[in-house]
Amino acid sequence: MPKEPRRKHHKRKRYSLPEAGSSPGLVYIDPNALKTVVRLYKYNADHYEISELAGFEGLHECVTDRNYNFWVEVKGLDSEAVFEELNLNFNINKLILEDITRTYQRPKLEEYEGYDFAISRMLYIDENEDVDNVQVSFILFDHILFTFQESYEDCLDPIRSRLKAGKGNIRTGGSSYLMYALMDNIIDHYFQILNKWGDDLDAIEDRLFANPDRSVMYDTQSIKRNLISIRRVVWPERDKLNDILRSDSPRIPNQTKTYVKDAYDHCIQLIDIVDSLKEISVSNIDMYLSIISNRMNEIMKVLTIISSIFIPLTFIAGIYGMNFARVDPATGKELPGNMPELYEAHGYVYTIAVMAFIAVVQVIYFWKKGWFK
Amino acid sequence: MPKEPRRKHHKRKRYSLPEAGSSPGLVYIDPNALKTVVRLYKYNADHYEISELAGFEGLHECVTDRNYNFWVEVKGLDSEAVFEELNLNFNINKLILEDITRTYQRPKLEEYEGYDFAISRMLYIDENEDVDNVQVSFILFDHILFTFQESYEDCLDPIRSRLKAGKGNIRTGGSSYLMYALMDNIIDHYFQILNKWGDDLDAIEDRLFANPDRSVMYDTQSIKRNLISIRRVVWPERDKLNDILRSDSPRIPNQTKTYVKDAYDHCIQLIDIVDSLKEISVSNIDMYLSIISNRMNEIMKVLTIISSIFIPLTFIAGIYGMNFARVDPATGKELPGNMPELYEAHGYVYTIAVMAFIAVVQVIYFWKKGWFK
Amino acid sequence: MPKEPRRKHHKRKRYSLPEAGSSPGLVYIDPNALKTVVRLYKYNADHYEISELAGFEGLHECVTDRNYNFWVEVKGLDSEAVFEELNLNFNINKLILEDITRTYQRPKLEEYEGYDFAISRMLYIDENEDVDNVQVSFILFDHILFTFQESYEDCLDPIRSRLKAGKGNIRTGGSSYLMYALMDNIIDHYFQILNKWGDDLDAIEDRLFANPDRSVMYDTQSIKRNLISIRRVVWPERDKLNDILRSDSPRIPNQTKTYVKDAYDHCIQLIDIVDSLKEISVSNIDMYLSIISNRMNEIMKVLTIISSIFIPLTFIAGIYGMNFARVDPATGKELPGNMPELYEAHGYVYTIAVMAFIAVVQVIYFWKKGWFK
Amino acid sequence: MPKEPRRKHHKRKRYSLPEAGSSPGLVYIDPNALKTVVRLYKYNADHYEISELAGFEGLHECVTDRNYNFWVEVKGLDSEAVFEELNLNFNINKLILEDITRTYQRPKLEEYEGYDFAISRMLYIDENEDVDNVQVSFILFDHILFTFQESYEDCLDPIRSRLKAGKGNIRTGGSSYLMYALMDNIIDHYFQILNKWGDDLDAIEDRLFANPDRSVMYDTQSIKRNLISIRRVVWPERDKLNDILRSDSPRIPNQTKTYVKDAYDHCIQLIDIVDSLKEISVSNIDMYLSIISNRMNEIMKVLTIISSIFIPLTFIAGIYGMNFARVDPATGKELPGNMPELYEAHGYVYTIAVMAFIAVVQVIYFWKKGWFK
Amino acid sequence: MPKEPRRKHHKRKRYSLPEAGSSPGLVYIDPNALKTVVRLYKYNADHYEISELAGFEGLHECVTDRNYNFWVEVKGLDSEAVFEELNLNFNINKLILEDITRTYQRPKLEEYEGYDFAISRMLYIDENEDVDNVQVSFILFDHILFTFQESYEDCLDPIRSRLKAGKGNIRTGGSSYLMYALMDNIIDHYFQILNKWGDDLDAIEDRLFANPDRSVMYDTQSIKRNLISIRRVVWPERDKLNDILRSDSPRIPNQTKTYVKDAYDHCIQLIDIVDSLKEISVSNIDMYLSIISNRMNEIMKVLTIISSIFIPLTFIAGIYGMNFARVDPATGKELPGNMPELYEAHGYVYTIAVMAFIAVVQVIYFWKKGWFK
Repeated sequence: MPKEPRRKHHKRKRYSLPEAGSSPGLVYIDPNALKTVVRLYKYNADHYEISELAGFEGLHECVTDRNYNFWVEVKGLDSEAVFEELNLNFNINKLILEDITRTYQRPKLEEYEGYDFAISRMLYIDENEDVDNVQVSFILFDHILFTFQESYEDCLDPIRSRLKAGKGNIRTGGSSYLMYALMDNIIDHYFQILNKWGDDLDAIEDRLFANPDRSVMYDTQSIKRNLISIRRVVWPERDKLNDILRSDSPRIPNQTKTYVKDAYDHCIQLIDIVDSLKEISVSNIDMYLSIISNRMNEIMKVLTIISSIFIPLTFIAGIYGMNFARVDPATGKELPGNMPELYEAHGYVYTIAVMAFIAVVQVIYFWKKGWFK
Repeated sequence: MPKEPRRKHHKRKRYSLPEAGSSPGLVYIDPNALKTVVRLYKYNADHYEISELAGFEGLHECVTDRNYNFWVEVKGLDSEAVFEELNLNFNINKLILEDITRTYQRPKLEEYEGYDFAISRMLYIDENEDVDNVQVSFILFDHILFTFQESYEDCLDPIRSRLKAGKGNIRTGGSSYLMYALMDNIIDHYFQILNKWGDDLDAIEDRLFANPDRSVMYDTQSIKRNLISIRRVVWPERDKLNDILRSDSPRIPNQTKTYVKDAYDHCIQLIDIVDSLKEISVSNIDMYLSIISNRMNEIMKVLTIISSIFIPLTFIAGIYGMNFARVDPATGKELPGNMPELYEAHGYVYTIAVMAFIAVVQVIYFWKKGWFK
Repeated sequence: MPKEPRRKHHKRKRYSLPEAGSSPGLVYIDPNALKTVVRLYKYNADHYEISELAGFEGLHECVTDRNYNFWVEVKGLDSEAVFEELNLNFNINKLILEDITRTYQRPKLEEYEGYDFAISRMLYIDENEDVDNVQVSFILFDHILFTFQESYEDCLDPIRSRLKAGKGNIRTGGSSYLMYALMDNIIDHYFQILNKWGDDLDAIEDRLFANPDRSVMYDTQSIKRNLISIRRVVWPERDKLNDILRSDSPRIPNQTKTYVKDAYDHCIQLIDIVDSLKEISVSNIDMYLSIISNRMNEIMKVLTIISSIFIPLTFIAGIYGMNFARVDPATGKELPGNMPELYEAHGYVYTIAVMAFIAVVQVIYFWKKGWFK
Repeated sequence: MPKEPRRKHHKRKRYSLPEAGSSPGLVYIDPNALKTVVRLYKYNADHYEISELAGFEGLHECVTDRNYNFWVEVKGLDSEAVFEELNLNFNINKLILEDITRTYQRPKLEEYEGYDFAISRMLYIDENEDVDNVQVSFILFDHILFTFQESYEDCLDPIRSRLKAGKGNIRTGGSSYLMYALMDNIIDHYFQILNKWGDDLDAIEDRLFANPDRSVMYDTQSIKRNLISIRRVVWPERDKLNDILRSDSPRIPNQTKTYVKDAYDHCIQLIDIVDSLKEISVSNIDMYLSIISNRMNEIMKVLTIISSIFIPLTFIAGIYGMNFARVDPATGKELPGNMPELYEAHGYVYTIAVMAFIAVVQVIYFWKKGWFK
Repeated sequence: MPKEPRRKHHKRKRYSLPEAGSSPGLVYIDPNALKTVVRLYKYNADHYEISELAGFEGLHECVTDRNYNFWVEVKGLDSEAVFEELNLNFNINKLILEDITRTYQRPKLEEYEGYDFAISRMLYIDENEDVDNVQVSFILFDHILFTFQESYEDCLDPIRSRLKAGKGNIRTGGSSYLMYALMDNIIDHYFQILNKWGDDLDAIEDRLFANPDRSVMYDTQSIKRNLISIRRVVWPERDKLNDILRSDSPRIPNQTKTYVKDAYDHCIQLIDIVDSLKEISVSNIDMYLSIISNRMNEIMKVLTIISSIFIPLTFIAGIYGMNFARVDPATGKELPGNMPELYEAHGYVYTIAVMAFIAVVQVIYFWKKGWFK
């Protein structure tokens, strides 16, 4: 019997709800939040400087110089002080702060007076082969970009390298271009994840043909579920990018939009791939079920052929195993009609011949029905 | 055999229909309606006062002072007098009164001359683990908010506490903010219910792997049905909030709309969660059905292996249990060809050996077919 | 075996087609049409008068007095003369007359110069528990309402009573209000029918748990089909009411539209209920199919347990039923190796013990596999 | 075993493709095209005249008289000359000519300078009970209507009769009315076909209850497929009629549009009927599959009951068929414990009684499980 | 048992991703890219000239003469130099160059200042019967058309011949007409592929009726999957053509759009055909599964009939094979009641008669149940 397949636990994102009825806009500090780490990038075409900050005190004054662009990168969300500073010195709406700290928001873009707020969801495969789903929040000012993420790990190092190297538009495109570059990088990772799942589906399909056991079902369902959850990320991501394209925010120039259009096209492709993989999952499941049915048919055929051939023969053997007496032992009187076959010369041989004939007829019958194919 | 699972009765909301053909706008008093209880909250930034009223007589004069906001909270809907006063003194349309008393309306917003009318559906899990679905109706004037609910119990105490404590915007945001706060609180409860169902689905999935009996099917179907019914609440709720956002009613200022946008986002998330859970339900059911099919295959394999091995052997044993006579007892004449094997030395041993050989061949055959895996 | 369930015949509405290629607008008199009966209601706030007419001759002059409203109620559609008068004296388009007489139209509203034309479908459960689906056509003039229905029976008596009693707006709301009241009454009946089907589904669900036989499938399918057909009535009904709401016909004042909005909301609720019941039907069918699969599993388990235990034992008994001879009766020579067990003291007891051991081992095996649960 | 059902061959419309890369607008003459036959109808309110033409030569001059309307009816599409004349003398776009000759176009309306082009698909049931699907193309000038069809047979004779008889608007409504009348007549035939399929489905449903064999599946699938293909005709037909309604072509007056609206309503009804029949097909298939499952259950019950009762009994009989010796024949020594039951008075009777008891217990057990119902 | 079907490997298009985080607009040269080959067509109504180029150096000057149209055909995409020239001399956006080299784009149209960019996907069946899916990119200037394709093979030779021959509009319609002609030719090939799959489905359906083994399932699933993937090409292709129709690019004159409308209609037909074939696939799979179920029923019927008839008979034979002694051999005392039947005259004959009777009764029973049909 197939051994119980290794069960992959689906990490369902639990929603750390506010106490029902608490004030909206209340900054929520998750008890498991990581310690806040702040890094400030100050750059322009010619300059690149990076500094670690203890918190947001004094930040307000640091970022006033319009000759530079600033990227304030916040990792870990356990510092209430940071959010208070954002509210006081940068005039950020409290509802936004709540969205940043409650890290189960969908991708979206919101335009406010003086700044824009956006959310992306960063997916990456961690060391346990699970898909981690981390929220990255963006606050975009004219020449400052804030990013917030709950985890220390991420997949954004290539952007940091490009920023340091200063290749391409990354230092000259303004803060909106940096935001685009980060978002685009996140989207690029979706492709990697989908490629991995595509490979998994191919491997499952191979097993489906070679040795279909029930783990085929479990694993396909698991991938299908992952696909559904990534679909729920990609669709609003696409809408968000479309919102950026149609936005008339002064912080997002047309030049950036040209690039965002490109990212938008990638999202459409992602949806295509997700749908394709989902179709393949469904087709694998259907195939698996039909294989099970087919197997049942084969098992039943074996049983039916063996039983149908031998049960009648056993019956005949049983007949001639009966003990009807030819002669009454008590009286010695002959009892007519009682199994005279047993006392015929070669009766045994004839019986075996009859049995063989019956068996052959049945084999031919089943053969004709195509049961041996 | 699995014991019959405990059947959870689905409380289908019965529609207490008006006598067909009765006048529209007729206030309907349900015979099971609870006694009407009225509580009047009078508050502003500095003041908070609460009083229990016997009915609506004189209420009209109480609430004229524009320096205060008023919340008239009505629980229990058996007082026809209350509705007559509403119609006479507050000029409320009769069709609205009918909607308030026929408590199976969908969430909606309707704008009238001088006031707005809205409906929310409050869901909470009662002590029997059933989901109660209670209508809360809102009538919003400039500085007065009426709420009507059929039950005494509700999940709105946090709002009452905030109103009493006077924290946040609750006392200064005006009546529309209070209405928003109540609606938002109701929506927050949907999350709690969905989290519970999510846990239930996880538990079912555990059973699915450990010990799948038919209760898996029943319980999943039950949750799926609940999900469908909550979906029918959340979708119109979303539309209602969208209507509020796009409303140009003078009673709903832009400041309130900023918060309503937040509640709208929550609704979108709710729909996402409901859809996810529904997908998980469907996937559980599919898995369960495939497990049943697999089991059938295993059962049939056991039967087929045992039968296929022993039926032919039993036939052979039957052969040598036949009583063909070697010598005719009547005549003493030897009957040639009648089962000479029985009279061979070691015939029994050879027969057993042949049987063992047949059994071994079959075991190898089934092994090769992978039936023992 | 379950007895064949009583088969409910679905009365498919047959379309009495015009001879293909006949002129459009040709009034079609169904050979089975009932004899036309005309009743004229003449009323205003203070006056109420009812008269039976032989036909439409002279009707034109009767209804000119603008101080009264008139309701011309036509039951039975076999009088060609009536339709000719309509065409001649009231200037009704021939295509409308065809729609009135071909009683398989969908609900719709059409606005013409001087009058509006509308269709409702009246559903009610007749004495055979079948759902009758009858067309009611409305022609609305400023102060005259014509209604046409194919059957004598209907569910409109409450409206007639209200008109006679003169309560509410029915006499003062104008002809459009009367049309609304009739339509609303028809919609109210949909709720009654759905409540009945909801009860039926509950009863089926009870049977599903208590004693699921194949009638569960038939009855659920039958209700599902009814739901589909009522859905095809309710959706266009909703569109029709929406058309009325958005209509700028001078014959439908805003006051009436306020009420029509209410009926529109009812239609939305109807669609909700229909969808809910359909989901329940589908879930019942799924449940039934899984119950059948489960049963098959149980049947097979019984067979497999019994067969697996007794077939090997029977084989052993067969072995010791073989007649290998210990001594060649012809020669008297002892035949070594031939079934010495048979000639051991207590051989029988040992054999029985071995059999019992085998049986116990198998029972334990099946127990461990959970087949006895 | 059920006999193989008569297989109905689905005539899939093969697309006679142009050589890939050939010029667009190339008139394509199908090698199987019928010989072109041209008939010219010249009519007005008072006049009706019909003439057979050899081709299109000189046609241009014949149809200049604006006092008459002309209908040029072309059957069979093998004459390249006809299309060249259309292009030269009537200035018809080459792409239209290609659409006329490649007879697998969907219904559509295209407006050009000076004329309109429309396509209908004529469905009728031929003598082999197959559904023929023939393209009819219309070119509408102010006072001339061209029609083109690939086959000689059609269902348009009623229109020809009405044109000859001159009843109704057919002669006075202009060319656009004639086009409408032809289209409407084609649509009327869809109803006939659907009524036939509805009857077939009813007959299948009767068989489903009386004697469900596998032909139920085949026949329902066949009808379902037909429904799908007619749906693909009716949907674009509806769009075409809608395009006519919204068209501002000077050749289609409002008077004609009133009639087209009627045809449009018929299309909506057709879609309704198609969807209903499709639902019935699906429900029949589901029912059939559940009947098969039920049957399997019944078959297995019979097998299990018989096997479970007799296999243990046979085992007991086998026990007492064993040949354990009471006395060692070689030594004459009594062998204790060897089957003493065989040598008890009435041992046989007791054994039979025990067997009967076991059988009765099992029958009661199965009865209680409801397996005999 | 059915032999394992030949498994067709689905070539899933692998996405050669850029290093995540690399600059957007980076021209990507696939390591497997074919060597770039450039061919320049210079033509007008009277002139046709073709030259092979080494690269793009100097091309800029070659194509300035506005008296000619130019087609620059690029096959193989391994030359970075070509793309640099495009960027420098023709001012092509870098993002476009990335789209050309990453050959997994969906069909689309993008309008830029001075030129338009479009993508088609060319599908053709290669020698291994696989469907190749190759990207063709178009850059359209006023009088120059660039095309880029990854493979050397293609299906565009007919266009090249027409261009050489100068028939039709191909030389006089301008560059946009040439682009249309190429796109149209690509679409025409979709029809050929669909016709092939339609034939395959017909062949599968024949096997379904003649000899349904599991390859039916595999092959149908394979075609279904192909259909899904072609659908993903045709839908955006349709959108692209629609974009061209609605485009106000000065490079696409109305004359060309008339032809594009024709291609657009073809796309709609393609979608129709794809959907039809998909329905047929699904119907084939359903049919196959019902055939499997039916077979199982037949197999079980055979087993049940044989077992039910012979198991009871074998039991009876077993009874009379028991060795209850009539006389105690030790004491010689007669043992009353022990199998007196064995010592009756003709007992054997009566027993056989009883057995025959039981068998006949069962056969009649099964016959009545319809199991032999």
